[in-house]
Amino acid sequence: MIRPRASMPGLSGMRVAAGALMNLKKLKKHITMNATSRLFAAAAFSVLAACSEGGQTPRSSSLRSEPVAPVAAARVDDPELVELGRKLYFDPRLSKSGFISCNSCHNLSMGGSDNLKSSIGHNWSKGPINAPTVLNSSMNLAQFWDGRAKDLQEQAGGPIANPGEMAFTHKLAVDMLLSIPAYVDEFREVFGAEGIDIKKVTKAIAAFEETLVTPGSRFDFWLKGDDRALSAEELEGYQLFKSSGCTACHNGPLFGGNSYQKMGVIEPYSAKSPAEGRSAVTGRDADRFNFKVPTLRNVELTYPYFHDGEAETLTEAVEVMGRIQLGRTYSESDNRKIVAFLKTLTGKQPEIMLPLLPPSSDSTPRPTPFE
Amino acid sequence: MIRPRASMPGLSGMRVAAGALMNLKKLKKHITMNATSRLFAAAAFSVLAACSEGGQTPRSSSLRSEPVAPVAAARVDDPELVELGRKLYFDPRLSKSGFISCNSCHNLSMGGSDNLKSSIGHNWSKGPINAPTVLNSSMNLAQFWDGRAKDLQEQAGGPIANPGEMAFTHKLAVDMLLSIPAYVDEFREVFGAEGIDIKKVTKAIAAFEETLVTPGSRFDFWLKGDDRALSAEELEGYQLFKSSGCTACHNGPLFGGNSYQKMGVIEPYSAKSPAEGRSAVTGRDADRFNFKVPTLRNVELTYPYFHDGEAETLTEAVEVMGRIQLGRTYSESDNRKIVAFLKTLTGKQPEIMLPLLPPSSDSTPRPTPFE
Repeated sequence: MIRPRASMPGLSGMRVAAGALMNLKKLKKHITMNATSRLFAAAAFSVLAACSEGGQTPRSSSLRSEPVAPVAAARVDDPELVELGRKLYFDPRLSKSGFISCNSCHNLSMGGSDNLKSSIGHNWSKGPINAPTVLNSSMNLAQFWDGRAKDLQEQAGGPIANPGEMAFTHKLAVDMLLSIPAYVDEFREVFGAEGIDIKKVTKAIAAFEETLVTPGSRFDFWLKGDDRALSAEELEGYQLFKSSGCTACHNGPLFGGNSYQKMGVIEPYSAKSPAEGRSAVTGRDADRFNFKVPTLRNVELTYPYFHDGEAETLTEAVEVMGRIQLGRTYSESDNRKIVAFLKTLTGKQPEIMLPLLPPSSDSTPRPTPFE
Repeated sequence: MIRPRASMPGLSGMRVAAGALMNLKKLKKHITMNATSRLFAAAAFSVLAACSEGGQTPRSSSLRSEPVAPVAAARVDDPELVELGRKLYFDPRLSKSGFISCNSCHNLSMGGSDNLKSSIGHNWSKGPINAPTVLNSSMNLAQFWDGRAKDLQEQAGGPIANPGEMAFTHKLAVDMLLSIPAYVDEFREVFGAEGIDIKKVTKAIAAFEETLVTPGSRFDFWLKGDDRALSAEELEGYQLFKSSGCTACHNGPLFGGNSYQKMGVIEPYSAKSPAEGRSAVTGRDADRFNFKVPTLRNVELTYPYFHDGEAETLTEAVEVMGRIQLGRTYSESDNRKIVAFLKTLTGKQPEIMLPLLPPSSDSTPRPTPFE
């Protein structure tokens, strides 16, 4: 298999991926700007900014005409908001137990997912549905499998108050933050006004999540004109993917995420879980078992598959999708080619510095995991 | 209060703190070593290495003669072993549920602890004892509150197989790792031989944990001769701490961690938890309620306090310790001074890049959280 050659792309100014941004912020904090260190810092900045684009220079800049598109690097307009969001994303004190954070189920070590069929929530609750990846999630037409949240900010408030997830309330979460002087200061600096409310909390989390994108997949280098980015087998897999009709739903930069589709078009899906899909939002019977088409970006990392996590491997997922959505039975060889292609959609993962969270104060309400 | 001035200490060669090491490793991975990037990398290395010492240049290099000593920066002899350990430390697949990692209870965002009275384990089990911080833990005379593990390597195997913690077995953990080609390769590279066993796993985790030290506290700058590092109140607090007899047990570089002592010397401790302490290891009745003296390093971050986590604040902990260990009742003012001093023991926290874990393969056994 052809592996991309690592190389140094041109310095990319302010379009830095999240991981590099975090490095940079930390680095800057540690450096007093005297003359000597300024020199070092400037060099370090350049290295980090350059690294952020990841990987490989396309051999040609002409974008191929395909039903899909490359993932763009994150554009960070408000780094302080993103930095606050990073802290909140990792802070388990936003849960009743003090044990569960956003990262517990959307783990940035594991493709932004938990790799479980359904998530574990407060008091070891079994979640009703597979946790979708947070990576590239800002590009979805809406959030959750049934699209009940219009954007990441609206989504972020959900798990905090869900009794089967973080089991807290928005008021208790905000009270917790208000009791910690360092958070009070940081919210003031970021929002330019005194006070914390759940909208500010979810806005910051969403701003951080918007940086969690994965440009630089081998497939994207091929899309941008690099013929050597894919092997013959991978390219055949992509042609099969297209010619079978997969791109009818899995298209655009996300390879999905932009429509609701029925699970079981040709053949009913024998779901073991009772999730009813989009009809829970619209109330329309026609929307039963309609789900948001999941992104295939980084699909190698986001197993198990489908809204119920019943497909453990890509081989199984491709088999089921071909059969129930397209009425096709792939040969073992064709299945393998499609799987090989799908693995080229793994992009450069954001590398995130674990935040150092401000300690609770004496007046911070303590978590109550066992009540 | 006097805050330390940030400044650039001299370049420190290979004695880098863990956070900077991680930065550096990642940075190096992203950089192709052509001539231009070599220049940048060298500069970035210097910045990171310099940053790693944290904070402030002592005004004098003469170490004060005190019953305590500064924390030294981590010495990293085998960065590849540390890097493997970092992955394992954050990998929840070492647990039965696929949800709990070392970092779940020894959270490096929160002073290396979980800030809970007792930890949450598999199936929401309530742990029997407060989770001690992993920070500086390699300097303890032994591991666990009762010292039943002689070192970090021996400790690391405990939670993996404890039914109330990660609830796995050593064999299942090793089988999981063996099913992931990237882990198999990394173990081979690190250990120079084929194969994975639990000793290699715990050796790598321990090597990572050994880097989790916190030099650079304000108190240590004072110890090293900088008169301006502590305020008058903090210094009075330290003098009170010494003159009351606290240093009889809380001494050395850890301010503790080097002896077992009875909880309740002057007055019995009304423990709500049944932990019996050191006698569980020695079998000697005289060792009942003897516990390893916990470190006071970073104690501002590692609330709640004592083996049962019953003291929620430093004020409460100082009050109880004074009363039951020393027969002293501190005035409100003296208690405040001691607490102010204790907060100067917060060192520079290791800043760790969240690892990108290799994905499971089709043959990796899936977690079973709900069985």
